[in-house]
Amino acid sequence: LVISSRGRCHCMDAGVKFIPPKQIEKIEVYSPSQSCPHMEIIATLKENGEQKCLNPESKFAKNFIKNAQKQKRSLG
Amino acid sequence: LVISSRGRCHCMDAGVKFIPPKQIEKIEVYSPSQSCPHMEIIATLKENGEQKCLNPESKFAKNFIKNAQKQKRSLG
Repeated sequence: LVISSRGRCHCMDAGVKFIPPKQIEKIEVYSPSQSCPHMEIIATLKENGEQKCLNPESKFAKNFIKNAQKQKRSLG
Repeated sequence: LVISSRGRCHCMDAGVKFIPPKQIEKIEVYSPSQSCPHMEIIATLKENGEQKCLNPESKFAKNFIKNAQKQKRSLG
């Protein structure tokens, strides 16, 4: 777990660049704020509820919503 | 508030198509699941903690992470 329970930012490092979309239950995107100067993205995994930081600079993060929408069909 | 406290999906309707990024504290993106067949995006507002559903089909939602990153500079 790379998420600190207290402190300024949630993520301790830049985070991973990719998580298979099917594994993701939800993501939380925190805007830069006074307590943390950069955006943070935290993904919660379906299987075990594990939380992972996702690098906001990654292409995957930038297109996450688009990526996740493509997935919809597979649930059809 | 358009968020139901119980039930299958969080959002009662398609949601708004735009929220000024500066007003957003965080967004939560829920993947389609067995309890709700479509993606849902819930934005929490800085000012009052109000939660609003954001339309996942909107251009704004699709580019939210990119949009929010552009903002970073303004906090410089």
